[in-house]
Amino acid sequence: MEYLEKLGVNAKKAEREMCGIGASDKNKALKILAENLLANTDSIISENLKDIVNAKKNNMSAAFVDRLSLTKERVAQMADGVLEVCSLSDPVGEVTGGWELYNGLEVTKKRVPLGVIGIIFESRPNVTVDAATLCLKSGNVCILRGGSDAINSNARLTAIIQDSLEKAGLPRFAVQLVEDTSRETAAKFMGLGQYIDVLIPRGGAGLIRAVVENSSVPVIRTGEGVCHVYIDKYATLDMAVKIADNAKTQRPSVCNAAETILVHKDIIKDFWERLSPLWEGKVVIYADEATARYVKSERIATDDDYAAEFNDNIIAAKAVDSVNEAVEHIARFGTKHSECIVTENLKNAEFFMKVVDAAAVYVNASTRFTDGQQFGLGAEIGISNQKLHARGPMGLSELTTYKYLIRGDGQTRE
Amino acid sequence: MEYLEKLGVNAKKAEREMCGIGASDKNKALKILAENLLANTDSIISENLKDIVNAKKNNMSAAFVDRLSLTKERVAQMADGVLEVCSLSDPVGEVTGGWELYNGLEVTKKRVPLGVIGIIFESRPNVTVDAATLCLKSGNVCILRGGSDAINSNARLTAIIQDSLEKAGLPRFAVQLVEDTSRETAAKFMGLGQYIDVLIPRGGAGLIRAVVENSSVPVIRTGEGVCHVYIDKYATLDMAVKIADNAKTQRPSVCNAAETILVHKDIIKDFWERLSPLWEGKVVIYADEATARYVKSERIATDDDYAAEFNDNIIAAKAVDSVNEAVEHIARFGTKHSECIVTENLKNAEFFMKVVDAAAVYVNASTRFTDGQQFGLGAEIGISNQKLHARGPMGLSELTTYKYLIRGDGQTRE
Repeated sequence: MEYLEKLGVNAKKAEREMCGIGASDKNKALKILAENLLANTDSIISENLKDIVNAKKNNMSAAFVDRLSLTKERVAQMADGVLEVCSLSDPVGEVTGGWELYNGLEVTKKRVPLGVIGIIFESRPNVTVDAATLCLKSGNVCILRGGSDAINSNARLTAIIQDSLEKAGLPRFAVQLVEDTSRETAAKFMGLGQYIDVLIPRGGAGLIRAVVENSSVPVIRTGEGVCHVYIDKYATLDMAVKIADNAKTQRPSVCNAAETILVHKDIIKDFWERLSPLWEGKVVIYADEATARYVKSERIATDDDYAAEFNDNIIAAKAVDSVNEAVEHIARFGTKHSECIVTENLKNAEFFMKVVDAAAVYVNASTRFTDGQQFGLGAEIGISNQKLHARGPMGLSELTTYKYLIRGDGQTRE
Repeated sequence: MEYLEKLGVNAKKAEREMCGIGASDKNKALKILAENLLANTDSIISENLKDIVNAKKNNMSAAFVDRLSLTKERVAQMADGVLEVCSLSDPVGEVTGGWELYNGLEVTKKRVPLGVIGIIFESRPNVTVDAATLCLKSGNVCILRGGSDAINSNARLTAIIQDSLEKAGLPRFAVQLVEDTSRETAAKFMGLGQYIDVLIPRGGAGLIRAVVENSSVPVIRTGEGVCHVYIDKYATLDMAVKIADNAKTQRPSVCNAAETILVHKDIIKDFWERLSPLWEGKVVIYADEATARYVKSERIATDDDYAAEFNDNIIAAKAVDSVNEAVEHIARFGTKHSECIVTENLKNAEFFMKVVDAAAVYVNASTRFTDGQQFGLGAEIGISNQKLHARGPMGLSELTTYKYLIRGDGQTRE
């Protein structure tokens, strides 16, 4: 049997076995996993070291090596993350609806796992544990395909997960790793619809685009965030400055950080004169000509700047003459993630919330709140910015689907 | 601007305009449409006649010509269908959740339309009106791509829809038809992710497979139904015969009809001796060797027979030695649509419902009930047999997504 097909067959078998596993068994496995991660810290770090040595040999950047690196503290954080997911309530089995039909048939709509989830990610070995834990807790089976640079770390972590599953009486192959990290195998993986129900890519925009273009398995797009803060004519200036600053600089590397500030032309001078001193020497601005009169603009902003996800202390800025123009700009350049209006005008706030097409639309609050923890959903597998299935932070419930159970006593259709 | 791009831009503009359209305006448009269909019956039939003449010239089958043909009665049925959708309640705007965060942020989860839906279908012109009506009622904009054989009918129907929209004050381009039915344009249509949020193919297995393979836009798979009836050892024979007969023969051409009967070996003789006389000269059976001892089998069933969606008075049959073997067979050959067990044994019933992975799992009832009308959901755009987004009959609610609205008074993240 071909390599990937074998993983697929294993996964389907594990999927079936997972049907009989309840919440307490899953929690037992997660607790064992947390213990085993701590107990195996040394071997994890020594396998990780092989990856680091290779990465340095391949002249990878310091930031890359940092993302790849596991330390004692980072392993402890992983174990904490597992226990945190363990403490969340189990979404599987929830009856979300039910009714009796005209002919006496009893219909029950019940939450069930998605089935087999494929996770494609880059060289952050913590994703291995993080994704596997969320999949397990929601009753799913997963096949992980991480970047080749982290293969030694990922293989060690997967073995620890599998041993923990076995010890708890769960199917070992509920979590598997694609150890062949060639491009050909990755391409085949994205066509494995016979075995995989959903693919979730986790990583940069390039990875996500590649999966969307090449996969015939249904994909959930996550984490593409070109988010905007629009400062309306009727904004309170103090609040506007505080929100814009928070949305851009509190953690610029993440998807819910702002990438463009739109400011109504009537308050552009006042707004930027207050914000500029805060950002002096810290945030690079690419502004349009109207804005550049009031801020130090590195260059005049291009359409490419407005479409860019900088993930850095860089921001594009534009003057607009109405909430309507702001909404048009967002429709053109946004990624349907998180969008904010700062205003005290009710009509403009309502219009913005109604017309802006995004997972999360904010009035007078920072875009940085789009997050499973902040929303109270618990840990998340990612923030969906597509419209099918789930939108925004994807917690455990969003890793489930449903089925209809219909109980009869001989009903046939006339 | 390129042809499809123009349709895309029109659709996005209409999508925005639809944000301001409430339930009463949508209903007004649907009522006008129903009237206009009746008032334009003659012109619809005369355009349809062109398609029929072409189809006959191209030596299409009688069944094909029948599906293509519109009569006065069929136009009246279309108009009735429009009024029926009009009478359903509007799912848009429903608040499905909401809570206050630790920092005072007010989160509201609200149901919104999916946006722009692409419908790809074959040569049944009634789909034009049917799909457009469901999309409109759920606040969506649609772009229809029907088969080239029905182009004259579809163009006339689309014009009537657009005129009705305009008369009701709705955006004309909320419904558009791809009039260029070339293969190249179809391929480009499936890559139009910039403008289209979801693609829904409606038609045979070949069409659906082609869309799934070639689309980079998210797809909802519908209508692939290799459904099974499993007659357990503990079945009541009368009920088993009645359900098997209904599931196969009540309407064999549809996706929720049964394609394979699995019978426990302990009752195989009794069961088939009762069912065979009913099916004599009516249903062709492809049975395995164990079953062929009791029924007139056309040939010994192959794996291809077990995988086939006959959509006809043909059935595959197999003897199994346990509910477990039945479930294994279904996992291998089923399409996750509708599956049935006939049994009086509680344990077997519960096991079957738990382990069988399908949109609808029946105990002691015909698979033919998997249907939006039968389930009480109203008219449906199709029956999803994938797990992302929606499963089973897709009514108006399943044509929506949600967004989070977050209201604050200056909250920023620490």
